[in-house]
Amino acid sequence: MELWYSEKHNDDLRISMRIKESLHTERTPYQDLAVLDTVQYGRMLVLDGLVMTTEKDEFIYHEMITHVPLIAHPQPERVLIIGGGDGGTVRETLRHNSVKQVVLVEIDGRVIEAARKYLPTISCALDDERVDIRVEDGIRFVQENINAFDVVIVDSTDPIGPAEGLFNREFYQNVFHTLRPGGLMVAQSESPYMNGSFIKRMVADVGSAFPICKLYMAAIPTYPSGLWCFLCGSKEVDPEEGCSDRLDGKPLKYYTRALQKAAFQLPAFINDIVSPSELNNGE
Amino acid sequence: MELWYSEKHNDDLRISMRIKESLHTERTPYQDLAVLDTVQYGRMLVLDGLVMTTEKDEFIYHEMITHVPLIAHPQPERVLIIGGGDGGTVRETLRHNSVKQVVLVEIDGRVIEAARKYLPTISCALDDERVDIRVEDGIRFVQENINAFDVVIVDSTDPIGPAEGLFNREFYQNVFHTLRPGGLMVAQSESPYMNGSFIKRMVADVGSAFPICKLYMAAIPTYPSGLWCFLCGSKEVDPEEGCSDRLDGKPLKYYTRALQKAAFQLPAFINDIVSPSELNNGE
Repeated sequence: MELWYSEKHNDDLRISMRIKESLHTERTPYQDLAVLDTVQYGRMLVLDGLVMTTEKDEFIYHEMITHVPLIAHPQPERVLIIGGGDGGTVRETLRHNSVKQVVLVEIDGRVIEAARKYLPTISCALDDERVDIRVEDGIRFVQENINAFDVVIVDSTDPIGPAEGLFNREFYQNVFHTLRPGGLMVAQSESPYMNGSFIKRMVADVGSAFPICKLYMAAIPTYPSGLWCFLCGSKEVDPEEGCSDRLDGKPLKYYTRALQKAAFQLPAFINDIVSPSELNNGE
Repeated sequence: MELWYSEKHNDDLRISMRIKESLHTERTPYQDLAVLDTVQYGRMLVLDGLVMTTEKDEFIYHEMITHVPLIAHPQPERVLIIGGGDGGTVRETLRHNSVKQVVLVEIDGRVIEAARKYLPTISCALDDERVDIRVEDGIRFVQENINAFDVVIVDSTDPIGPAEGLFNREFYQNVFHTLRPGGLMVAQSESPYMNGSFIKRMVADVGSAFPICKLYMAAIPTYPSGLWCFLCGSKEVDPEEGCSDRLDGKPLKYYTRALQKAAFQLPAFINDIVSPSELNNGE
């Protein structure tokens, strides 16, 4: 018998992966959760029918959502992660020796439990003594914690379902206030090939809350279209210009210091999404 | 009724696209050829069951395989394209005013005819008076034309079937000799996520023929994994350092002058494919 997982990226496009075994499925208070063991990508976390992370390619997303903002900050000590219950972003954050505390605010405790049980290579740092795990709503958490963090990472699901409230102007303004002076945020921001109008609105919203707002990219094979965006909002530092070589000697698989700047060099059609021009002139 | 095209990237992974209509299928002397009209990507050319190009995303591949080597060359006048029967690389090459002649050597004349009939936005430049179309074998062509071109673009199918002989050391040495002094070549070189060992061998082969050998990338949603590589072999110029702003004012959709350098900044695991190190140190 062959078992296949198929994901509808939309009505006209699907990706399918052969499955060794369905390890776990449940309906949590917030979403459908599944852990499947795939032949191509190893174990895979699926929320509401969408791939969140896989053992084989998780390094791309987690390294790029974490190290770009942390290297841009001269001395990140307190980091807030909203979402990210699988623990991959926590693991990468703790590679920075400057970090004294990581607060992980995940609304769905079942994601954390599933990751602990089925995805140990991703969740392995959740028990580090610098990690403070809160199973609660990130929207309320940023309202109640002012001037508290150096970096905020919004490691959320897609902007439908439980994460919807993490994608609007009011939320980004609250993130601004939860950041200390000189702080910056990053949020996963979907595919430029599939979600151009969504990214355009998100750039406008983050840009209304932060003086510096820049988009960067990484190539993630298990996400729709294979190209993914991350949006930075910064109070002061230019995220393209990394401040630190803090990662020297760490065994990374995607991020390099050269990519800190290169990841922000966008294809022309994405530049047009971010700041439309009459005619793109190849510059 | 719903019609779907499914491509097996390997035994464990498939992509599927909904089809409006199958416009054309035939068995040519070299391969299976189909033109399908997809909902998501417009009309699509399929050779031996693999997506070659689509109306919606062809700009990425064609701009990146063409403009990177042509901008790296100070004054490209004669350009050789091997493969590329759809005409997209010809169209992009002719955006460079310095170009006096483009020789297109495509082994399968049926690809050219199908593109002329079904893909007019891609094949539109094939009748330009600067274009010399030869329906013949590119392997023999480079053996017989010494010191004749400034840039060679190997715009081939995958390294199985008719293109197999375009991926070995002897072929790259012949390309070296078909280039004039200061010339450079580029060849499509598959996905770093799916074909790492293939890329490793190709880097060794091109590197044995050319003093400068560098890999760059573009994000192509209809190709396996969504991330694609291109390998440059150069006699003299560093392809990262573009020599010209010849494209200023041209209406491009992917390539920008900033990407000329950024596209060569590889993720750590690809750096390891190209030049393995004991421990990647984030640099």
